[in-house]
Amino acid sequence: MKIIDKINQKLKEGQTFFSFEFFPPRTEEGVENLFERLDRMVTHAPIFCDITWGAGGSTADVTLDIATRMQNQVCVETMMHLTCTNMQVEKLESALKEVKKVGVQNILALRGDPPKGQEKFEAIEGGFSCALDLVKYIRKEFGVYFGICVAGYPEAHPDGIVDDPDQMNKNYWADIAYLKQKVDAGGELIITQLFYDVDLFVKFVADCRSVGITVPILPGIMPIMTYGGFKRMVGFCKTKVPADIMETVEANKDNDEAIKNFGIELGVKMCRQLLEAGTPGVHMYTLNLEKSAVAILERLGLVDTARVPKPLPWRHVPSGTARACESVRPVFWTHRPKAYLKRTQGWPSYPTGRWADRGDLQYGSLADAPQFMRRHTATDARKDKARAAWGAALEGEEDVKAVFAKYVKGEVKSFPWSELEGAHQPEGAPETAQLLDLIAAGLLVINSQPRLNGVSSTDPTHGWGAPGGSLYGRAYLEFFCSPAAWESLRPRLDAAPSVSYLAASASGSPQGNLKPDDVVALSWGAFPGKEIVQPTVLCASSFGVWKDEAFELWLSEWSSLYEEGSPSRQLLADIHDRWLLVAVVDNDFVAGDLAKTLLG
Amino acid sequence: MKIIDKINQKLKEGQTFFSFEFFPPRTEEGVENLFERLDRMVTHAPIFCDITWGAGGSTADVTLDIATRMQNQVCVETMMHLTCTNMQVEKLESALKEVKKVGVQNILALRGDPPKGQEKFEAIEGGFSCALDLVKYIRKEFGVYFGICVAGYPEAHPDGIVDDPDQMNKNYWADIAYLKQKVDAGGELIITQLFYDVDLFVKFVADCRSVGITVPILPGIMPIMTYGGFKRMVGFCKTKVPADIMETVEANKDNDEAIKNFGIELGVKMCRQLLEAGTPGVHMYTLNLEKSAVAILERLGLVDTARVPKPLPWRHVPSGTARACESVRPVFWTHRPKAYLKRTQGWPSYPTGRWADRGDLQYGSLADAPQFMRRHTATDARKDKARAAWGAALEGEEDVKAVFAKYVKGEVKSFPWSELEGAHQPEGAPETAQLLDLIAAGLLVINSQPRLNGVSSTDPTHGWGAPGGSLYGRAYLEFFCSPAAWESLRPRLDAAPSVSYLAASASGSPQGNLKPDDVVALSWGAFPGKEIVQPTVLCASSFGVWKDEAFELWLSEWSSLYEEGSPSRQLLADIHDRWLLVAVVDNDFVAGDLAKTLLG
Repeated sequence: MKIIDKINQKLKEGQTFFSFEFFPPRTEEGVENLFERLDRMVTHAPIFCDITWGAGGSTADVTLDIATRMQNQVCVETMMHLTCTNMQVEKLESALKEVKKVGVQNILALRGDPPKGQEKFEAIEGGFSCALDLVKYIRKEFGVYFGICVAGYPEAHPDGIVDDPDQMNKNYWADIAYLKQKVDAGGELIITQLFYDVDLFVKFVADCRSVGITVPILPGIMPIMTYGGFKRMVGFCKTKVPADIMETVEANKDNDEAIKNFGIELGVKMCRQLLEAGTPGVHMYTLNLEKSAVAILERLGLVDTARVPKPLPWRHVPSGTARACESVRPVFWTHRPKAYLKRTQGWPSYPTGRWADRGDLQYGSLADAPQFMRRHTATDARKDKARAAWGAALEGEEDVKAVFAKYVKGEVKSFPWSELEGAHQPEGAPETAQLLDLIAAGLLVINSQPRLNGVSSTDPTHGWGAPGGSLYGRAYLEFFCSPAAWESLRPRLDAAPSVSYLAASASGSPQGNLKPDDVVALSWGAFPGKEIVQPTVLCASSFGVWKDEAFELWLSEWSSLYEEGSPSRQLLADIHDRWLLVAVVDNDFVAGDLAKTLLG
Repeated sequence: MKIIDKINQKLKEGQTFFSFEFFPPRTEEGVENLFERLDRMVTHAPIFCDITWGAGGSTADVTLDIATRMQNQVCVETMMHLTCTNMQVEKLESALKEVKKVGVQNILALRGDPPKGQEKFEAIEGGFSCALDLVKYIRKEFGVYFGICVAGYPEAHPDGIVDDPDQMNKNYWADIAYLKQKVDAGGELIITQLFYDVDLFVKFVADCRSVGITVPILPGIMPIMTYGGFKRMVGFCKTKVPADIMETVEANKDNDEAIKNFGIELGVKMCRQLLEAGTPGVHMYTLNLEKSAVAILERLGLVDTARVPKPLPWRHVPSGTARACESVRPVFWTHRPKAYLKRTQGWPSYPTGRWADRGDLQYGSLADAPQFMRRHTATDARKDKARAAWGAALEGEEDVKAVFAKYVKGEVKSFPWSELEGAHQPEGAPETAQLLDLIAAGLLVINSQPRLNGVSSTDPTHGWGAPGGSLYGRAYLEFFCSPAAWESLRPRLDAAPSVSYLAASASGSPQGNLKPDDVVALSWGAFPGKEIVQPTVLCASSFGVWKDEAFELWLSEWSSLYEEGSPSRQLLADIHDRWLLVAVVDNDFVAGDLAKTLLG
């Protein structure tokens, strides 16, 4: 969806909005950290997030990859920066085609900084010399597909900031005239360079309006976070800093904490002034950090960190992306939502209301996305961390059990079958004791859901969706167990009156009492004035795909931590080869006791 | 769906099946009566029903119309007979094209009887002389679209039944050779002429198999219902009647009841013998009557009249038609299901699971289907009946109220807003008293649904769907009320915490607290191992269509009973012009009390 359409909707509803800007980290580790941060930050519902193109286009591939994942895995409306620096037209075209293909629909068109080592920007052979050319090119070649945003400079472009006030004034108005050209060529939204003098921004907006620029203008806010960073940035951008601000910063130059707190206070004060002056929303330059930006928004009342919206059990993010109407997912990927998003990224539409209606949609493979299968083993540092959590060596199945138990208790935070950091269940939930009993009995639980019968949608533990709803859920347990354990368990499941189950070994086909086309509702909710929502289901065909993934994780995420030929590695490989993965539902959501059925 | 595919499925599952045959009644009244009977009879889940082409093709148009309604409004898999009698190829082509267009996919191809007045069949100019030509024609012109059924004659075709046993034997085998040709040309199923000697049928099947006819052969069973009818039929068909049967019939020739009971006993005995001999199912010649055919099937254990399956609250008919996967409908047409089916007949697909996903499907008009709008006023006889039920003259609103109250109490069985004969609510249901209170308060209820919170799916009053399910429902009331009543009611609805409502006058647009795209679930069920089913909903756009229909019924079904200018007519026209139609849902299905909210 185009950001301008989302903004217009907000303007119509009279709602203030905000957005976050990030830059591509230099290391793979840094990228993964950024995504963890992004996951948390989008729960506050920014109207969009953008990712810069990186200085001199040096990180173009990283930017493209991050934009793709932001749009399709984080599921936030994403804007990608694109600059002319070092980019032939062919390169620009290929980048635009690529992001179009993956559903990114918003571009911030920039000239870009001069390449490293050069002082002055010069167009390369076959490239563009200014953002205006880029805007025109995008409109010409891609029609109205892309929403185009352009940059505004409340203090004139740094290239035009000079000492002579007359010349400076000329440059400022030339910049505004140029901005008008960019808007006339297709720019639908303006985001400004950072500034610390609110009056300059207000004057800039008025000056833009005076020449006929009518599109929304969002102020770029960069919270002061460190003394060094602030000084470098205002130097680079030639930003005018009001004397009182500079005095406070200089006075606290050796006190990191004080600088940061002042940055938050200043950000809140600036934003208040901006909003009072009629600014519809604010754009936060986060510098890839979470705290200052979120703290400012929280103090402005624009986010409530205590009450994060959770529209569906598995989705925290309301968004305008293609997945906005998605409302059903299989339970299996509860703790691996990104792997699920990746596997379904190419789907032309997403299941709504009923999973059985999804038609011929086939799961994609994870073969070309190693980050989903080697999350804990991709680098030596991560391997060290994983071994510290799950054991430097495993002597037997009891050691394996112990890892599952520790994870359930929250004593280890990472887990081969989870992308999410943190405990399997909310800490101290009544289910923890049951899960530990099951693990002690040799059922190595990797996913579970409690029985719910008309629980309030605002329940602090189990709640999701709008207030006033009644939530229901069938008890669900998914675990690995040995062939011997399965042999004694299976007759009990067959005899249980209300149990549906599926089971499979790594090399075998799924078996169980579900018909191939059956779909079991695992969670659903009744909300006033709405259709019944049924966000979590289980079906045999999805289990068939998931069980391959789940078994593979024994090897790719765990056994590969240990030396080839080591007993630990052999133990886990043996479990992988021989054990079964079992998924069990108790259909009786009113009075069932699934743990009791399993424990006998 | 082709009948042969349904039969093959039954054969695979080892299930015995049955079918019903009907003929086109001579009068419009007769047609309506037939459809009432059909509605009841298809609840027993016949594998298909067929409709004959009428003697000499005289009722061709009626047959086409009935086949269309059977397939699309009764929603039973329908087979239409087609004969060569008096039919040029162009006429046959046009009939086949017409039924293809409306989704009928099964044809019984017959030569037909000679036209009235002729003794011997002769092909007309430009027509076919035998069923074989018709089978070939259908396959040639329509490919594999149609399932084709052909007739078999266990005692040889009546034309070949002669006294000379040698000639008779020759004729019998010639008939079988001809039947083989019909099957080779495309006949996929054989239904036999009626017979009363089971051994002859068994021999016939063996003889057919001996010449390589492998398709299923269904015995045509005609229960003896009256002495005269039986004698005429066996005379016409030259049917051999075993001596003991004829003796019993003759002995009881003046005792209608005894003849009928004997017919049932004989039918049961014959069918048992047939099924024991390996016959997969039976085809009942019903002569448009219900009791004997159903009684035979009931005593065979093939139907259970005490436990009629009801897969969804509004659908009694499991079927292989295009609507088989339909699982959501708006509540408004609860008592006018056929009007709903007619309005949605042209839809390329039917909503499944969620109404909100139905896309651009638009309701059709009833303008070309007067039977839905003038059910009680189409003939003088019906008008008389309606006036007897609703009053020869109405003196004021109290008289109108009284009709609504009588209907709710079951004291009158017909109602302008219902296609169904019978009371609005199950007699003596706890809701009756509440409905009467509402009517007394001036809220003229035309539809309602009680609140359900986890009721068993086998509940005798409210149950639907498979056993083991939990059913839920939001209380629903729909009524006409005067502007004054509405003025005092509306603020109460606005203040009620859990109420959604829509209201409109005949000439006004719907108003209420529902957003245009909101869809409210009114009934839903959770069944073991399945997705949540949500068969009844309410939405503003459907209400907009329904309210026009509901208001029009004041005029077309009621006020038109009375003389132009009469006070009764004026009274009803005035209500039509001024009153409002109101639809109210209590979202609180756990503890709401909608009647209390309305009564204040």
